[in-house]
Amino acid sequence: MERSLEIFNRLVRELLADEAQNPVAEYIPSRHLYQRLDLKLQKDGISALELEKSLKDLVFTTPRTATNAFFNQLFGGRQDKAILGDLLSVVLNNSMYTYKAAGPQIGVEKVVLREVCDMIGWGKNSDGTLAPGGSMTNFMGMLMARDAYNEKTKHEGVQQKMTVYTSIEGHYSTSKNAAFTGIGRDHVRKIATDAKGRMDNAVLRKTIQEDIANGLHPILINCTAGTTVLGAFDNLIEAKEIAKEYNIWLHVDGAYCGSVLFSAKHKHLIEGVENVDSFTLNAHKMLGTPLGCSLIVVKDKTHLHNSFSNDASYLYQTDHDEFNLGKTSIQCGRRNDALKLWVLWKSVGTNGLENIVDKQFELANTARKYVRGNSDYTDYSIDDAVSVCFNYKGIPAEEICTLLYEHSQLLVGYGSFKEDTFIRLVTINATNENEDILKFFKTMETFVAEHEALFT
Amino acid sequence: MERSLEIFNRLVRELLADEAQNPVAEYIPSRHLYQRLDLKLQKDGISALELEKSLKDLVFTTPRTATNAFFNQLFGGRQDKAILGDLLSVVLNNSMYTYKAAGPQIGVEKVVLREVCDMIGWGKNSDGTLAPGGSMTNFMGMLMARDAYNEKTKHEGVQQKMTVYTSIEGHYSTSKNAAFTGIGRDHVRKIATDAKGRMDNAVLRKTIQEDIANGLHPILINCTAGTTVLGAFDNLIEAKEIAKEYNIWLHVDGAYCGSVLFSAKHKHLIEGVENVDSFTLNAHKMLGTPLGCSLIVVKDKTHLHNSFSNDASYLYQTDHDEFNLGKTSIQCGRRNDALKLWVLWKSVGTNGLENIVDKQFELANTARKYVRGNSDYTDYSIDDAVSVCFNYKGIPAEEICTLLYEHSQLLVGYGSFKEDTFIRLVTINATNENEDILKFFKTMETFVAEHEALFT
Repeated sequence: MERSLEIFNRLVRELLADEAQNPVAEYIPSRHLYQRLDLKLQKDGISALELEKSLKDLVFTTPRTATNAFFNQLFGGRQDKAILGDLLSVVLNNSMYTYKAAGPQIGVEKVVLREVCDMIGWGKNSDGTLAPGGSMTNFMGMLMARDAYNEKTKHEGVQQKMTVYTSIEGHYSTSKNAAFTGIGRDHVRKIATDAKGRMDNAVLRKTIQEDIANGLHPILINCTAGTTVLGAFDNLIEAKEIAKEYNIWLHVDGAYCGSVLFSAKHKHLIEGVENVDSFTLNAHKMLGTPLGCSLIVVKDKTHLHNSFSNDASYLYQTDHDEFNLGKTSIQCGRRNDALKLWVLWKSVGTNGLENIVDKQFELANTARKYVRGNSDYTDYSIDDAVSVCFNYKGIPAEEICTLLYEHSQLLVGYGSFKEDTFIRLVTINATNENEDILKFFKTMETFVAEHEALFT
Repeated sequence: MERSLEIFNRLVRELLADEAQNPVAEYIPSRHLYQRLDLKLQKDGISALELEKSLKDLVFTTPRTATNAFFNQLFGGRQDKAILGDLLSVVLNNSMYTYKAAGPQIGVEKVVLREVCDMIGWGKNSDGTLAPGGSMTNFMGMLMARDAYNEKTKHEGVQQKMTVYTSIEGHYSTSKNAAFTGIGRDHVRKIATDAKGRMDNAVLRKTIQEDIANGLHPILINCTAGTTVLGAFDNLIEAKEIAKEYNIWLHVDGAYCGSVLFSAKHKHLIEGVENVDSFTLNAHKMLGTPLGCSLIVVKDKTHLHNSFSNDASYLYQTDHDEFNLGKTSIQCGRRNDALKLWVLWKSVGTNGLENIVDKQFELANTARKYVRGNSDYTDYSIDDAVSVCFNYKGIPAEEICTLLYEHSQLLVGYGSFKEDTFIRLVTINATNENEDILKFFKTMETFVAEHEALFT
């Protein structure tokens, strides 16, 4: 282990030093990948020295997601205490299904989930679990909705035509999950949004009524807290009224922005969350932990047990079920994804997590102000979002984003809303400062000025 | 980062030094957990010094899965090169859905999957992906089987009574997954096994015929390569004949022991694997990488696309689909679980992986020989398995395993097969030596001798 730890430490220190100078890695076109890098596997092992050389090349050419030039994904930056926790998870290598195999790490996960439930305002009957990513926690929400609607389904299979509802701006995993659960993609109703990207609840109600009239069975309303493109928040209070009226499960996909729960200033964006049935947030997005750290919490924990518990006498051999987390997990063996969040939380406190969230809105405000105050830009942003959407000098967003990527200048993506396509800058890296955001614009402007020929 | 890396290095070095002396951590009864350890989260952050103290206490009391006294799970030990790879994954923090976000790490995953497909003997039309654990890769196998049987299912939902087949010794995730996919647990046929724990293929054929006669639709035969308790291997050649005759998808759950693929000496145990439709193996089991590293490979990659691809224009913005791995993944954002296996493989070569697998059978033979040569033991083992099953002096297995755990002596579990319950020793930690196995028996015997009063 000693030698491998030394290699790890050398590589990370070299990477950190290089990142400070070069926030964007060398761009390797995918068609050149296997020529540029030695990724081959072979019959015989290689020396530690050769391995380190090969690894250094790989590490240095890997996209840098933690720097002040990475704005491409709904995650970014590096909360070092969270990394500390995740590095320890790797070395400890516990599987989180039983107390016997994970010991106090079970307590780590339970404390984190309890705290989140308490912050929502839920009582003792609430609980939660972790799953590898928001698609998976949303999948769990849909399964619980399906099984709560008809508990025979898990035993006898799907026997009814069930329908689920999400906004047209909701994450694509709703469709994917509808296929997975046997509900079917055709039974996902993609509800229109208002001008600010929020689900139109009048349309939602009307669609549900039509489906019922047609003999279909509505089982799930999926609200989004932070849509993928605009970062919009659906109105949970209105959605709950509808869910209650028609007895439908209400799940909130807060994978992207559910962590506003931690912010006194911004938690009004999920007002009414205490009345929903299940709620998902990804700590690896707004809270800045490494991938993956996706939580799902449930107002009534019975549903977790109903949909996910299994007899496995060879596995659950000691301690009470409450400490054998495999009973409420979608997985069997499962890595310790809670420790990274716990170490960060323990280290910076709830107040520190609040600061991390608030910082992102501050950075977004800086970006929006810049865009709105500069006539070279067209603004497509909504307020109260950590996605900032705009175009520059009328250049097509796809063109400028691709060229910035291929020239190793910036990693940023584009998105569409209704008729418009635009650059989408996400300010989710709370280790950035306002000047990093201004530097983003400067870098882009300079690039366009110096490469005029490319943009004609 | 610097300070957190220092803490990490100190904690790991202290842990490694302590593990060498104390292979089993202090046992904390779950009812004392919150008194014994400070797991509370609070409003204000704490100092790095306080954090390190708190973390040390947690790390030192966490079950030690890598030592020569851990035989409790279907994983164990520490392949340090794989750990190096996983530590780097944490720091690099790429999401594996796009080439833009993951760059050459996409190549890492593709190379590993290609190599596994080649070893099976599959051509260019094969492919694979990673998912977080064997339950999830088996879930993917079931989904592909379901969608291949009736491609309308993913659009229109489940409309037929479908049935799936696995042995009574197969993993419980088959039932769980049947609930998830809308097939229903009641439609899982648990086929009887022969005396050595292998699915009885005559019973399988008869059951399929009955189901067809009753108007049901058989869609999946799930064979197991390494059953959870005995470590038995189903006969793939016979199963394939049946699958072919009735046009049923054949999946192999090799989560536990599919890695015999790497061993010239033992790969006969999965003879015929080249003719199955999909195959799962967990590198975090036999190959000794940290959790999780579960691969699923598919003979015809069309099925991966059919069941898992989605339009997500905001996501797939550059490069060819073949480099945007999100198109064939069950997840959206996804950590880099391939790098740990790649670093290990690159470092020790295919020959080195073979040695890792072979070592486990060697250790198992040592254990079986000891048990069979000692009249205090009752042997329940099958040959050709890395699970070694036995009882000692007629003491109930549950009793002895629980006491060894609560006295921090050994972590080992028990299992049942037909009428018998017994201790199940898994020799999956290839960093152990034959003397570690003999020490296991010695420790248990000494414990029983010194605690006679507990066993009356």
